Amino acid sequence: MKSSLVSSKNLIRLQSAISRSFLQHSSKPISQTPFFIPIIPTNTINLYNQRYQNLQFQIRSNSTSIMSSSAFKPEQARLPPALPLSSPPLTKFKIGICQLAVTPDTERNIQHAREAIEEAAQKGAQLVVLPEIWNSPYSNDGFPVYAEDIDAGHDASPSTAMLSEVSSRLKITVVGGSIPERCGDKLYNTCCVFGTDGKLKAKHRKIHLFDIDIPGKITFMESKTLTAGETPTIVDTDVGRIGVGICYDIRFQELAMIYASRGAHLLCYPGAFNMTTGPLHWELLQRARAVDNQLYVATCSPARDTGAGYVAWGHSTLVGPTNTYLNFCM
Amino acid sequence: MKSSLVSSKNLIRLQSAISRSFLQHSSKPISQTPFFIPIIPTNTINLYNQRYQNLQFQIRSNSTSIMSSSAFKPEQARLPPALPLSSPPLTKFKIGICQLAVTPDTERNIQHAREAIEEAAQKGAQLVVLPEIWNSPYSNDGFPVYAEDIDAGHDASPSTAMLSEVSSRLKITVVGGSIPERCGDKLYNTCCVFGTDGKLKAKHRKIHLFDIDIPGKITFMESKTLTAGETPTIVDTDVGRIGVGICYDIRFQELAMIYASRGAHLLCYPGAFNMTTGPLHWELLQRARAVDNQLYVATCSPARDTGAGYVAWGHSTLVGPTNTYLNFCM
Repeated sequence: MKSSLVSSKNLIRLQSAISRSFLQHSSKPISQTPFFIPIIPTNTINLYNQRYQNLQFQIRSNSTSIMSSSAFKPEQARLPPALPLSSPPLTKFKIGICQLAVTPDTERNIQHAREAIEEAAQKGAQLVVLPEIWNSPYSNDGFPVYAEDIDAGHDASPSTAMLSEVSSRLKITVVGGSIPERCGDKLYNTCCVFGTDGKLKAKHRKIHLFDIDIPGKITFMESKTLTAGETPTIVDTDVGRIGVGICYDIRFQELAMIYASRGAHLLCYPGAFNMTTGPLHWELLQRARAVDNQLYVATCSPARDTGAGYVAWGHSTLVGPTNTYLNFCM
Repeated sequence: MKSSLVSSKNLIRLQSAISRSFLQHSSKPISQTPFFIPIIPTNTINLYNQRYQNLQFQIRSNSTSIMSSSAFKPEQARLPPALPLSSPPLTKFKIGICQLAVTPDTERNIQHAREAIEEAAQKGAQLVVLPEIWNSPYSNDGFPVYAEDIDAGHDASPSTAMLSEVSSRLKITVVGGSIPERCGDKLYNTCCVFGTDGKLKAKHRKIHLFDIDIPGKITFMESKTLTAGETPTIVDTDVGRIGVGICYDIRFQELAMIYASRGAHLLCYPGAFNMTTGPLHWELLQRARAVDNQLYVATCSPARDTGAGYVAWGHSTLVGPTNTYLNFCM
């Protein structure tokens, strides 16, 4: 399988990135820290059929941000002010976002994801994010067939077993997109987060199921097969405090607000928007979450495959708290 | 004074407008109602120095919206579901947004605003929105000088006396932008809403004062002279239930959420973003409020005047709940 990684030499500085001290609840604001995102090389414009793409950004200290820590003082305007929360130390790091193409062959998907994660880590990524339902096609017919028993692990969940192995071996944090999960007689759309020791740190079950019916455009009813998760998921990792949502979860501003109020530095939304909802709302929603809550937002979509039953929008994206963002091609 | 109104013949239908039944708490959802907004005529591209601009849109029934009432069911994904609230009947109507140029001459500003409102009403507007601080220059030096005693009314507040007279005479609802208000020894940035009978229906005092310091870009401290309001303002009018915010209030998503939860159909934000914050966030914030809360958002800025001490961004905007929007020129 071929792959294309954005090389680190293409990193550019976004002058307009805002200070992270804007973050509401950070006890140790990291002032003047715009983030670095890669320029997309020209030859990625037509990466339509490419197996996957990795996207990396790096947080570095910088003292010339036009939106310095003294610029906005939203907490002064909010009464009563929020209490500072203790949170893990936050330093500059690179994130790899793997916009994987997905096939009906789970073994192939797992091997493909492993290679993408390894390549991202080799390029310096300390955090790697995968797409929603990356181990199998996104379909109600597929969910029961491809579902894995994550709690049983090992052979009962080869997808998460790989994530555990690779995160431990490479000493990176992995926000493992999502896979269909079987638990008893129920199915969930579930994201697993693995720490640098390979241990499962958090498991997020998609809270807001995606039931949509736009005749002639897109019809999908996740609730036909899936059960909704019931709890927000926030996890402390080596790269900071991360709030996790899956796809439709991003539409609900209150979930992001909960994460922000609990001190999240970054929200990760594996998500497979489609060719109707993608152009309408994908970009807006993540920019809004980032700016409204003054944190970073990373989304990771499967690569677009027009031959699939459900065509993902693609355009995995990184957004900073000032509205600086980079979205990927399809 | 010259004026330029977008003529009603330039109205176009936005096919992608979403059904208002998406609105969370409307007891009587008005399904299939995309809204109409005007095409900006080519000759308005350079309206830089124009005295004011009016913008109108009209809500009409339509059955061909691609995003019909059955498309999204966010309330199904939210548990527990929201209780339906009674709210005033909502019908199609035109809104006039008057992007007024502001001078140091209050009498002139009042006369100018009166003419703009009259012209909007003549074109069929049932609701007219004015900009933030339209009766005087936006400055801490100016606020104490131009402040009016709104509660005393009449000669003590010629600006609101005009708004009352004109709304009664024309039988329209007016969201009267904002003016500096004096109340005892305090000053507020205050928006008055007048009903079709000319009576003051609501008074919103800007809750989130705008204190910003981006060296070399924009520095302004409203808190030097102004006192913050303490309460959200929601008002039932002949054209529906309206939530009111002023400028920086739009940054705070929770205010819009409160309004949505109380059944607002439309949020009106008179606002004077500037040449730094305008391009960064003005458009994003109002689109986010509209889509996240599934309602209409109207913003009204003063016209841009590069000779002013504080240069407003302009770009008054209307947004619908699916992210369809039109923003004005400067």
